[in-house]
Amino acid sequence: MFIARVTGSVVATQKVGSMTGHKLLVVEPYRLEEKKRGSLVPTGRTFIAVDPLGSGEGDYVLICQGSSARLTPETKDLPIDAVVIGLVDSVHIEKTNVYSRNDS
Amino acid sequence: MFIARVTGSVVATQKVGSMTGHKLLVVEPYRLEEKKRGSLVPTGRTFIAVDPLGSGEGDYVLICQGSSARLTPETKDLPIDAVVIGLVDSVHIEKTNVYSRNDS
Amino acid sequence: MFIARVTGSVVATQKVGSMTGHKLLVVEPYRLEEKKRGSLVPTGRTFIAVDPLGSGEGDYVLICQGSSARLTPETKDLPIDAVVIGLVDSVHIEKTNVYSRNDS
Amino acid sequence: MFIARVTGSVVATQKVGSMTGHKLLVVEPYRLEEKKRGSLVPTGRTFIAVDPLGSGEGDYVLICQGSSARLTPETKDLPIDAVVIGLVDSVHIEKTNVYSRNDS
Amino acid sequence: MFIARVTGSVVATQKVGSMTGHKLLVVEPYRLEEKKRGSLVPTGRTFIAVDPLGSGEGDYVLICQGSSARLTPETKDLPIDAVVIGLVDSVHIEKTNVYSRNDS
Repeated sequence: MFIARVTGSVVATQKVGSMTGHKLLVVEPYRLEEKKRGSLVPTGRTFIAVDPLGSGEGDYVLICQGSSARLTPETKDLPIDAVVIGLVDSVHIEKTNVYSRNDS
Repeated sequence: MFIARVTGSVVATQKVGSMTGHKLLVVEPYRLEEKKRGSLVPTGRTFIAVDPLGSGEGDYVLICQGSSARLTPETKDLPIDAVVIGLVDSVHIEKTNVYSRNDS
Repeated sequence: MFIARVTGSVVATQKVGSMTGHKLLVVEPYRLEEKKRGSLVPTGRTFIAVDPLGSGEGDYVLICQGSSARLTPETKDLPIDAVVIGLVDSVHIEKTNVYSRNDS
Repeated sequence: MFIARVTGSVVATQKVGSMTGHKLLVVEPYRLEEKKRGSLVPTGRTFIAVDPLGSGEGDYVLICQGSSARLTPETKDLPIDAVVIGLVDSVHIEKTNVYSRNDS
Repeated sequence: MFIARVTGSVVATQKVGSMTGHKLLVVEPYRLEEKKRGSLVPTGRTFIAVDPLGSGEGDYVLICQGSSARLTPETKDLPIDAVVIGLVDSVHIEKTNVYSRNDS
């Protein structure tokens, strides 16, 4: 999985039938800042993921990719390759808090 | 998933039997422009995807990759790893419209 | 899927039993030339793919990756992650022919 | 699979129900130093993996990605794409020990 | 699949139970040298793969990734994403032998 920040959303009216009613988020993967590893920094990449958890813009989420994206109750048998499986509360690196939801 | 622009099409007469009749599109993944995140920009990569939705050149589409590409009614059991699952109407980033089908 | 040019072949006598008799091609993925998008250019990457279609060196082929590589009659249940699913006749980008088999 | 160093952990209270109770680690893939191949060096990438083995910060672990991440007793049917399958004791390259758990 | 050179091995005593007894190799993917395509050159990447074929350091092998890594008799249902499916005897590019096991 990877940590991503929710940056937006996508509207698609014409789509595969089974996709009706599933919210599509624009998410950007984050990684640890390479030098000091003291913060999360954006990777510049852009993914679209289905969100069964109701996360909003600015939230940091956990994204699962591949066939396992179909392994949540809401996404069974969907033609998708990425899903939000959790909202990140905090990330700790070597005893240091590099992200906390309450602070952001 | 990722957002891509339909840039062309591929013709292949000699192919695995089950692929007969399935339209093959050339698509180019797009990502958010890295500095201001105010527009979609091309990544320079090239993928071929099956299109069960009848999209045309210039359309922005949602591409699903991997085994889930076989999870639409039209692509069941096909030897494919990428499929169009939706036509993008609009993309919103932090309350701003960065793409709208009607404008393009 | 991606478009690739067949550049060579691999011989492997010691192999997993089920792989006996399956031709192994060296293929190089191609993408659209980034500036003018008027031709296909090599990516410099190297893949090995099983070929059930009898393509030869210099041919442009369509490669399917992942579990779907097992979804052709000849490759069912094989331990492979890439297969040739079609021989490319032509590629059109924005109404322009950027590759035609007869021309090459 | 790839070798990674455990650098931290993630807390996510709101998540897909089946994920409750599964520890989420932040891991960083390592590769062989390119010139002399005499040591393992960080790649700068960041992954989140489920850990059924109880590894701790600083441990070097083996990460399995994709659908196979669901093939351990503790991760069956989970919506995950990465799992710790082993704790690395030692890595030998051309008869030389480039990593030993006891030394680190 | 890709061609890789076996560069070493990994020992992991604490691991998922089903992994007991499976040899873990360190392998480095190779690709065609980009200018003249007359030789195989290292990519600098590092993968760990299960080896059911008994290959040794210095051997060039074929690696299958993803769920298909579970499709050999020795790796059925294992939590792995890469397996050796063949030992490379020779690689021919445009009628030229760019690798031969006997020469190396």
